[in-house]
Amino acid sequence: MNDKNNSYHMELEEFRQNGYRAVDWIVDYLQNVESYPVLSQVAPGDIRKQLPPSPPEHGESFDAMLKDVSEIVLPGITHWQSPSFFAYFTANSSPPSILGELLSAGLSVQGMLWATSPACTEVETHVMDWLVEMLGLPHKFLSRTDGGGVIQHSASDATLCALLAAREQATAGQSNKQGCDGKLIAYTSGQAHSSIEKACMIAGIGSENLRLIELDQRFAMRPDKLDEQIRADMQAGLEPFFVCTCVGTTSTLALDPIADVAAVANEHGLWLHVDAAMAGTAAVCPEFRFINAGVELADSYTFNPHKWMFTNFDCNAFFVADRAALINALSILPEYLRNQATESGAVFDYRDWHVPLGRRFRALKLWFVIRHYGVEGLRHHIREHVALAQEFKQWVTDSDEFDLVVDNPLNLVCFTHRDGNEASERIMKAVNDSGRMYLTHTKLDDRFVLRMSIGQTRTERRHVEAAWQQLRAAAADRR
Amino acid sequence: MNDKNNSYHMELEEFRQNGYRAVDWIVDYLQNVESYPVLSQVAPGDIRKQLPPSPPEHGESFDAMLKDVSEIVLPGITHWQSPSFFAYFTANSSPPSILGELLSAGLSVQGMLWATSPACTEVETHVMDWLVEMLGLPHKFLSRTDGGGVIQHSASDATLCALLAAREQATAGQSNKQGCDGKLIAYTSGQAHSSIEKACMIAGIGSENLRLIELDQRFAMRPDKLDEQIRADMQAGLEPFFVCTCVGTTSTLALDPIADVAAVANEHGLWLHVDAAMAGTAAVCPEFRFINAGVELADSYTFNPHKWMFTNFDCNAFFVADRAALINALSILPEYLRNQATESGAVFDYRDWHVPLGRRFRALKLWFVIRHYGVEGLRHHIREHVALAQEFKQWVTDSDEFDLVVDNPLNLVCFTHRDGNEASERIMKAVNDSGRMYLTHTKLDDRFVLRMSIGQTRTERRHVEAAWQQLRAAAADRR
Repeated sequence: MNDKNNSYHMELEEFRQNGYRAVDWIVDYLQNVESYPVLSQVAPGDIRKQLPPSPPEHGESFDAMLKDVSEIVLPGITHWQSPSFFAYFTANSSPPSILGELLSAGLSVQGMLWATSPACTEVETHVMDWLVEMLGLPHKFLSRTDGGGVIQHSASDATLCALLAAREQATAGQSNKQGCDGKLIAYTSGQAHSSIEKACMIAGIGSENLRLIELDQRFAMRPDKLDEQIRADMQAGLEPFFVCTCVGTTSTLALDPIADVAAVANEHGLWLHVDAAMAGTAAVCPEFRFINAGVELADSYTFNPHKWMFTNFDCNAFFVADRAALINALSILPEYLRNQATESGAVFDYRDWHVPLGRRFRALKLWFVIRHYGVEGLRHHIREHVALAQEFKQWVTDSDEFDLVVDNPLNLVCFTHRDGNEASERIMKAVNDSGRMYLTHTKLDDRFVLRMSIGQTRTERRHVEAAWQQLRAAAADRR
Repeated sequence: MNDKNNSYHMELEEFRQNGYRAVDWIVDYLQNVESYPVLSQVAPGDIRKQLPPSPPEHGESFDAMLKDVSEIVLPGITHWQSPSFFAYFTANSSPPSILGELLSAGLSVQGMLWATSPACTEVETHVMDWLVEMLGLPHKFLSRTDGGGVIQHSASDATLCALLAAREQATAGQSNKQGCDGKLIAYTSGQAHSSIEKACMIAGIGSENLRLIELDQRFAMRPDKLDEQIRADMQAGLEPFFVCTCVGTTSTLALDPIADVAAVANEHGLWLHVDAAMAGTAAVCPEFRFINAGVELADSYTFNPHKWMFTNFDCNAFFVADRAALINALSILPEYLRNQATESGAVFDYRDWHVPLGRRFRALKLWFVIRHYGVEGLRHHIREHVALAQEFKQWVTDSDEFDLVVDNPLNLVCFTHRDGNEASERIMKAVNDSGRMYLTHTKLDDRFVLRMSIGQTRTERRHVEAAWQQLRAAAADRR
């Protein structure tokens, strides 16, 4: 309680001092992040048992909170921002992104309608257009055409929205009104992300109505098999409507042949969605744009700046060629949201572009990231990550104990130990338990495959080299 | 380009200085927020035309960005944090919340699995349990029972998840597998939020299969009409499965009689979801807990700390009595997410509790807010907001030109001008155009109704009084 004005709010001068200390805390954290075990070593319940069972009746100082973050929270953190984090897919962040998130929290606006904060909508539309240019994406995704881009929470949400737009287009809006009828069929790669199946469950399509198409030797979708399956489903009286193709699958970063997949989808009149969640950022470099060959034939496209573009979660970028199809699938206009700007039709109301109504000003951090690095800066670091992965790949190839499983041109290396699954799994466990690095696995044709994903903001050659030494040492120790 | 180390990253010392300046900027903003027009006065396109059409090739200084935030962005902001913001529903924020968001951005962890940052999951579970205690919610929502709480992006997402859990329970998991069949029927108040209809569209239920139940004089759902409708649908061979009832509708903050609605839902074996998006926070005060009478009979419950609990968006709290039902509806476990902790069954993996896979550390800001204010501090300010609204209501009641439309016990006042719709609309437009306050409207039985929503962090009696004077002056000027 602040006696002066009968208020419990934190005074602004106190906020200023605490804000400085929070910034200092982050600087310390990022300076020292290499000294912590990358993978948290706590056991289930270790964090909770240090917290008071009941909420405090009386307010506490920011000192107390910051102390608890250092002493209780930090040991329970798996350090995604560590330069030795090679697990899953990268989720890098950067100072300009943190600053954008901070200012966004300070403004705390709701951008659900253009009218509820025009800048929140317009900066977002603008930065989405910038991304189209930066990545060499087709012009039909620009806001001045019939398409446009929007920030979504995650690629899972973007894929769900693409599926819904496709569903409504296929059923002329009838699914929205009368519900689904179990006849619509969706298609994706047998290596697609679990979010595609989840979206089919959520949208009332059903996971059994999602066809996982057979793969080629490089774990990419086979367009001939897609065509075969679509024809078989049509013959069976079912209604094919949606194809999700991957620029970089989660397991191996496999690149589907988008142009060939698109040709099949287009021939049969199916919606084509391209999921480039992690790999999409690579297209900022002209030499990697081959990954998007064929995207000009897609109806929608998504990638995550919050994975590889130095922007902290959440910030997914989702583009559609026909925004009307998306809006038709998701729009509802109750009286309490009516306003002049919306009715004029001159503005975008982004709440009609996704599941939630509310939305914060996420474009700010992406705007800051692009402006801080400039396109050349982003290119520089993406090239660096890819070069490091390619060098690591060469070490694996040259090694007499590890085997390369997939020859990927980007920033993921999939490999195994020659002694088989148990050896690979034990090596993974040993390096992760050491706390000095963190990597995860996938399974491919019953092989336990290690995944080395390179893309954290502060990862340098020395970290990748140290990781390789640790993997070799763990392999040797195992004997 | 930072020549020293061949990097475009912002050096940490530079980040520290820029961080201080961003904090200073927010302090200035909050100190001066009353001097800006509450509702942004820009026209469509005004913001975008000030931005360069192409992304910068070379990096820019943080100075340049901060200058653009002040000069370009700020005029395009509708100031949700203004003490004279009375529109829609409150979306208040506070310094401890901003600090929590800042630290969360600094840590930038992914909390999709317990293993990917145990503290992110455990602090969240813990704070959700705290909320159950703070709000007097039923113990079946506690994590040590079969239930539990989770932070969702928005109430729209929470309602969608409740609907999906109900759908899978009603169809024994068959909708997830085979898709929907158009026979499931959902029920809600005729004044429910548009998100219920949107969720029915998304989940393949269909908006025509959502029954809007007739209201009583206070715009609350009539349980007898609900019962009637369910029986009629059953007789018609349809499958009633879900009821969403409201603690505080969006238009008028109407309180459905939850216990009576629950009795009907339970009798017919339907899932009962309670949507208390805005009003839920009021239950922190024992004297307002009557709003939740009957929640002990619900299957799920949601409210938004990001509306009235001083926590910046996004932070929705969603509780279920049977977490297995929710997880069954949303779980998928691909190989690349498998890990020991998950397989032991001893931990929560929150990605199975909502649509997205990724999630940031949102519990941090809520933890900070509760600890900063203490329960007594939150009670103090909620009581203050309600008292201000009740005082405003009295002014309306005593006035000879305005009429009270609904007698609500909380923090929303719905009223009209006696001269009718056109007068009310012109008054609203006049005060909003003045920039000195901002309120919005709804329509009730063809009446254009003004909504005065009181709950911003820095709203004091003087702001509410000034708003009343402005409304009266606008009414007088109109003649």
